[in-house]
Amino acid sequence: MDIIQLNSFKPTNEHTIVPRRIQFKQELKQELESLKRIFLIIGNKASTTEFNLNDLPSSGGRMDLICRFIAQTLFISHGIRRNSASIAILKGEPDPPKAVFAHGGKVRYMAPDERNIAGLLRKAVKYGGKEWKEVSPGIFSAKKGLNEVLEEISDFYMVYLREDGEDISHTLSISPKDKLAFILGDHVGVEKEDENLILRYAEKIVSVSPLSLQADQCVVLIHNFLDRLEFEEFEEKDKLKRI
Amino acid sequence: MDIIQLNSFKPTNEHTIVPRRIQFKQELKQELESLKRIFLIIGNKASTTEFNLNDLPSSGGRMDLICRFIAQTLFISHGIRRNSASIAILKGEPDPPKAVFAHGGKVRYMAPDERNIAGLLRKAVKYGGKEWKEVSPGIFSAKKGLNEVLEEISDFYMVYLREDGEDISHTLSISPKDKLAFILGDHVGVEKEDENLILRYAEKIVSVSPLSLQADQCVVLIHNFLDRLEFEEFEEKDKLKRI
Repeated sequence: MDIIQLNSFKPTNEHTIVPRRIQFKQELKQELESLKRIFLIIGNKASTTEFNLNDLPSSGGRMDLICRFIAQTLFISHGIRRNSASIAILKGEPDPPKAVFAHGGKVRYMAPDERNIAGLLRKAVKYGGKEWKEVSPGIFSAKKGLNEVLEEISDFYMVYLREDGEDISHTLSISPKDKLAFILGDHVGVEKEDENLILRYAEKIVSVSPLSLQADQCVVLIHNFLDRLEFEEFEEKDKLKRI
Repeated sequence: MDIIQLNSFKPTNEHTIVPRRIQFKQELKQELESLKRIFLIIGNKASTTEFNLNDLPSSGGRMDLICRFIAQTLFISHGIRRNSASIAILKGEPDPPKAVFAHGGKVRYMAPDERNIAGLLRKAVKYGGKEWKEVSPGIFSAKKGLNEVLEEISDFYMVYLREDGEDISHTLSISPKDKLAFILGDHVGVEKEDENLILRYAEKIVSVSPLSLQADQCVVLIHNFLDRLEFEEFEEKDKLKRI
């Protein structure tokens, strides 16, 4: 009965026993299908065990920043971006790395305030299994690092955010029609080793501002850049219909 | 001695006694001098008494939203916008309205996480005096409503954010050289009575996105719009120097 409940599972033979490990893997793959925009942040100090909700910056290893990042990837006014997702790679003590994946189309009981999202993350980091597990609705957790996660989302057109990158507003190669994944660092930045990994996958390096901004601010600007492109396309189509 | 400590006070006669009320008024006026960008939000339900830091959305009357708004007006990565300020008009129970003013060039001990800013606001709403008082470094509080505050910042070029406004990216009349004040609503929006007041002062109605966004997201987009204009001007000047 467990197997049937996983809606991603399509058995070729009713009697095949599928090990639990593979079920989770398939489940994440299916989650990616409905997504158009993924935002991945590397939390260099972000806690990998239960942290204090009253002290996100210190006990959480700047978990406040991760919470704002997730909020900005998913929320608009009175609504949620159902085709967007966040991934946070948590590299803080005591058990790095861990990955948390939040799917805008699946999350429930999430509000945009830091404490609410921190509560969900606190639950997510408790889990230490190797494969993805949906720890609360729309929130998946796994003991995985950047390398594994980049490989799992490698069907997406990957864009690396760096201050010396090409201005996103001059970029012609990023289309809202594509499945896009944006990779960002936290307040510490991106360590050399992680950057080398990212550059293996990234097809583009862009920047969004002449100033050095916080990760969540970059997300707001990227969403707006894509929303405007989508809206223009929509308007164009609308004009064509009327001719 | 008290009088000399107020650096805005310029006596014409050493022996003049200035009532305390006027001192505060002059102090705010001086604070405005160094500012280029003010962002004002109307917190329709925001608490006007000490609220629970563990429950900003409910006990605070969506104080989480006000905190994110202030964070986005003032913070960039590893820095603060010294020529920007936030004003929050708090209209929630039990003692509405109150106003809180946070000056980017003067605030100390402020971090961008919601709980930190909420702590400063909690201190600010305790004060119920009619005139502005600096309740912690760079944070001023007063028992004032929208009308009085708009009058005090009326030297600024005022821009009202509304979803049906002109797209900011097509607007030619907003220049980063001007002293600008942007007026926004919270999750509830702007009540008719408040809007009528705003429209008396606003010289422009703009929107920033084809979607309905949260107030803090609008702030990020406005800052970016102005940062880009400032940077282009800087680049132009630099080119001219080199010719």
